[in-house]
Amino acid sequence: MGNTVRFGISLDENLLASFDELIEQKNYMNRSEAIRDLIRASLVEERLGSEDQEAVGTVTLVYNHHVRDLSDKLTEHQHSHHHQIISALHVHLDAHNCLEVLIIRGAVRDIKQIANELIGVKGVKHGKLVMTTTAEDL
Amino acid sequence: MGNTVRFGISLDENLLASFDELIEQKNYMNRSEAIRDLIRASLVEERLGSEDQEAVGTVTLVYNHHVRDLSDKLTEHQHSHHHQIISALHVHLDAHNCLEVLIIRGAVRDIKQIANELIGVKGVKHGKLVMTTTAEDL
Amino acid sequence: MGNTVRFGISLDENLLASFDELIEQKNYMNRSEAIRDLIRASLVEERLGSEDQEAVGTVTLVYNHHVRDLSDKLTEHQHSHHHQIISALHVHLDAHNCLEVLIIRGAVRDIKQIANELIGVKGVKHGKLVMTTTAEDL
Amino acid sequence: MGNTVRFGISLDENLLASFDELIEQKNYMNRSEAIRDLIRASLVEERLGSEDQEAVGTVTLVYNHHVRDLSDKLTEHQHSHHHQIISALHVHLDAHNCLEVLIIRGAVRDIKQIANELIGVKGVKHGKLVMTTTAEDL
Repeated sequence: MGNTVRFGISLDENLLASFDELIEQKNYMNRSEAIRDLIRASLVEERLGSEDQEAVGTVTLVYNHHVRDLSDKLTEHQHSHHHQIISALHVHLDAHNCLEVLIIRGAVRDIKQIANELIGVKGVKHGKLVMTTTAEDL
Repeated sequence: MGNTVRFGISLDENLLASFDELIEQKNYMNRSEAIRDLIRASLVEERLGSEDQEAVGTVTLVYNHHVRDLSDKLTEHQHSHHHQIISALHVHLDAHNCLEVLIIRGAVRDIKQIANELIGVKGVKHGKLVMTTTAEDL
Repeated sequence: MGNTVRFGISLDENLLASFDELIEQKNYMNRSEAIRDLIRASLVEERLGSEDQEAVGTVTLVYNHHVRDLSDKLTEHQHSHHHQIISALHVHLDAHNCLEVLIIRGAVRDIKQIANELIGVKGVKHGKLVMTTTAEDL
Repeated sequence: MGNTVRFGISLDENLLASFDELIEQKNYMNRSEAIRDLIRASLVEERLGSEDQEAVGTVTLVYNHHVRDLSDKLTEHQHSHHHQIISALHVHLDAHNCLEVLIIRGAVRDIKQIANELIGVKGVKHGKLVMTTTAEDL
């Protein structure tokens, strides 16, 4: 973190009124905080466009734990990527279905590859990957 | 459009340096212009979340014009929604494939429904919908 | 286009029932057509992940035509990329706002760059890019 | 889960060849498994379009734990939604930055609201929400 700097921006008053409404609805403390979030989000998106970027991925998997050997297979996959998969969280959704969230760290390319591998395991019903950067300079 | 107002925002200097790089790369004239675009984009996304919002949709379709009756069917579909589909643009991609872009105006709900209908026509290979608002107050 | 081949897939009957509902709602003629669309969409997404892929982009811009010199600037930008921008469609949204849809052909990298340039022009309120492939083999 | 049923689909051989490549690259065991995943993903997307749908959300937050009172505020927010936030996973990204993943259960509308609230907390640098359904019938 560096020093805090301040600068002015100009805006149409109607646009500002609409933005102020959105800020309130989204519970932001003030305009600076809301604009900083928009700026950071645009930087994160830009960076994630590069396959070499160091990033952190959250993979959300839904699966039926009654499928034979599925838990074992998922565990095996995770161990074969134990350098990248740094943590896992498990939730019991109902009598049959589990939700598992894995946090993966590495290059964008590798995170996508590992996520695809996990989502492709037979018995995994649905999976989604979301990525962010480690954000050291943000 | 109302009057232009001006206000200050505070930011970490490293975050600002990264943002200034992005602004240059994206060819923005200055920070105000870039931040206004981020603000408008966030307002548009928020509004499009409501199914009743008046919006404008651009549907991009790719299809093979050799498929029997396809052009006729697409034209028919468009005419049955002539109040909403306000314009169409056609491009010949290669010897077989066409790209057609349709502009649809109406409630978010109706735009989605019409887009689904068009994308579902037999012979349409691929379709995508993108929406914006008419943006009168943005 | 090659020959049509046929193969069987197995599915849980409840999942199939839900899919049949979705198919009807989206106006697909039959399951094959709906599944072909899902397959093509997944292939298109995969390919668009590569910056070198030849693609077609649709850029939707909203702008106020009263902004001084804006139309001229947009036209100039388009001419400086006349090899890639193959067509444009213009719609008058209201007394002030225009919607312009441009079709751009080229590598994914170049399409993104041109779209950013256009969206960044002062006075353009909002812009969105959507891409598809020329889909010759799909 | 119901009985497994089987049906045939027809496809252009070139499209199938491209799909078989994608299947291999994504580590799917066979075509049925890959197509089931596409079908489930399309059903999940459809359902998440409705604000009343029961769903599960994964919120990924990045924040600097040195920001005064931030951890306390996040914890407080979570407790005020303890019926919906069913679990949290915390990862130390570097000397300053934390990643926190929260699993939220409820109607789509409520999940979005809680996610916005958390992302809007002062000091949270970046946040993303991804949703799936509980998938009981998928």
